[in-house]
Amino acid sequence: MVRTGRRPGSAGTRAAILTAAGEAFAARGYGGATIRQIASAAAVDPALVHHYFTTKDQLFLIALRSAVDPERLLSQLFAGEVETLGERMVARFLALWEGGAGATASALLRTAVTGERIAQLVREVVFPTVVDELVRRVGVDPAEAPLRTTLIASQLSGLVTTRYVLELQPMASAPIEWVVAAVGPAVQRYLTGELPGLVGKSPPDGGRAGMT
Amino acid sequence: MVRTGRRPGSAGTRAAILTAAGEAFAARGYGGATIRQIASAAAVDPALVHHYFTTKDQLFLIALRSAVDPERLLSQLFAGEVETLGERMVARFLALWEGGAGATASALLRTAVTGERIAQLVREVVFPTVVDELVRRVGVDPAEAPLRTTLIASQLSGLVTTRYVLELQPMASAPIEWVVAAVGPAVQRYLTGELPGLVGKSPPDGGRAGMT
Repeated sequence: MVRTGRRPGSAGTRAAILTAAGEAFAARGYGGATIRQIASAAAVDPALVHHYFTTKDQLFLIALRSAVDPERLLSQLFAGEVETLGERMVARFLALWEGGAGATASALLRTAVTGERIAQLVREVVFPTVVDELVRRVGVDPAEAPLRTTLIASQLSGLVTTRYVLELQPMASAPIEWVVAAVGPAVQRYLTGELPGLVGKSPPDGGRAGMT
Repeated sequence: MVRTGRRPGSAGTRAAILTAAGEAFAARGYGGATIRQIASAAAVDPALVHHYFTTKDQLFLIALRSAVDPERLLSQLFAGEVETLGERMVARFLALWEGGAGATASALLRTAVTGERIAQLVREVVFPTVVDELVRRVGVDPAEAPLRTTLIASQLSGLVTTRYVLELQPMASAPIEWVVAAVGPAVQRYLTGELPGLVGKSPPDGGRAGMT
């Protein structure tokens, strides 16, 4: 988890805290982990944790981003045709969830998605970091990017709910490859397909807006 | 909530318990409501609640089905072209959630989807009642129906998570009509579109299964 070759000192201390934090959050969840335990595991004074990361919220988010590694994830996603980006997003997301990207990343992602306490943090930081950035790089109309991001989030979070939380069958035991092929095109449409207009735009097919 | 014109007696008592149960679960959730409170609100002995509904689980499910009224819901969904059934599903689901079908139905649906304790009940009873039945009536290959049901569940539950639980913007404040037009086609594809093959079938486009 200590990713750089930097010598011990402030960077080494910061990295040690981050490693301890990742392990603590993964093992005990956001609510169960404490700054004191994390400081103890990193063999530093709790005041240093506050010095480097200000709050437990900040520490969690930085640990999550560090374990998931957005830049590496984004470059994996863009290694392929734009037309199959939706499938790669589903595949990477499921791999992350199921621990294919490391147990810490997997546990942190689960904490981030299922913990009510940190829903706000996820909303403000995690989605902008990865999904928003991905949508931006695809080159869609920037005005549409936030809507596309939340539509993608709606499909991916629901996949978690049905497959891993409710464990609805046969979804829960379907092979990842099948889920990728079934759900990928829906994510692809949210990513690059034509969507209805929102504020100040007319919907693509007129009267449908009044159907309810 | 007492829907029949039957005279008081066993049917009237049963209906009174169901009304009290619906209100109690809606107000206090599955965990917070007790058989004793429900019996008291219905002015009956708690033993009668057990007599008519056996367990709290059963009572909750019957109250949910009674408030949501699957038959009425299904006939509303089928009032229109099959090609826009996905949009009507999203529209009805959002209307139910936001209370457009009555505060009790709305609160019960929320309890059913967000309460961990009853995830199993939802899995075993609620989905088979409405979504499975709908998928069957559409006339798709019966062998595919369970997969289609869970795919639809994945999109609808994720819509709840992003719009109502995480309140991701701009999804959380987008008009229902926009959400219907944006998400409807994804649900439609899960309902009637071509999906990858699962066990014993080859995927429609061959090599994709090995992409991860």
